[in-house]
Amino acid sequence: MIVYCVEVKVISGKEGVFEQACLENRKGTRKEEGNHRFDVLQQSDNPGSFFLYEAYSSPEAVKAHKETPHYLKWRDLVAPWMAEPRKGTSHRVCAPLEVSGW
Amino acid sequence: MIVYCVEVKVISGKEGVFEQACLENRKGTRKEEGNHRFDVLQQSDNPGSFFLYEAYSSPEAVKAHKETPHYLKWRDLVAPWMAEPRKGTSHRVCAPLEVSGW
Repeated sequence: MIVYCVEVKVISGKEGVFEQACLENRKGTRKEEGNHRFDVLQQSDNPGSFFLYEAYSSPEAVKAHKETPHYLKWRDLVAPWMAEPRKGTSHRVCAPLEVSGW
Repeated sequence: MIVYCVEVKVISGKEGVFEQACLENRKGTRKEEGNHRFDVLQQSDNPGSFFLYEAYSSPEAVKAHKETPHYLKWRDLVAPWMAEPRKGTSHRVCAPLEVSGW
């Protein structure tokens, strides 16, 4: 399992449309065979700061995700709403190790 | 649901013991009534950078967690292994909204 985290800072006034775009992307992503989780979060003390928490079964699954229509649509749609370039980081999972934990 | 994220930078050589301490803390935390998730991650391209992803049912559950013996033990044990102060951020959940998604 690989967890890919994405931090996004959104310009003021675009929080609502950004959230909706992420929920659409999530809907498609959760149907991908290699995706196990896609959480959309908004920082409590900073509504312009969003966090996507995505779990995939392999590096190939991450790559496949980035070629899907829902991801590409999201990427292009949200681009003008970003206050700064988004920051993605890839993680090894220490726990939970069982697939049922995802 | 509230998601509490913690970023920890660990000094070189302490990655293994830090991971073990987090797994112990996780074991106790997952038994708390208000805890729904506790993922322990290590950044793929930076083994000294860890990420804890904790989901709680309420602010009270977060507070209760910080008073548990397993949390206090973890906090004191890992303190000398940190390369810089750890950074915690609290999040509102946009998705998944159903409790079964956690």
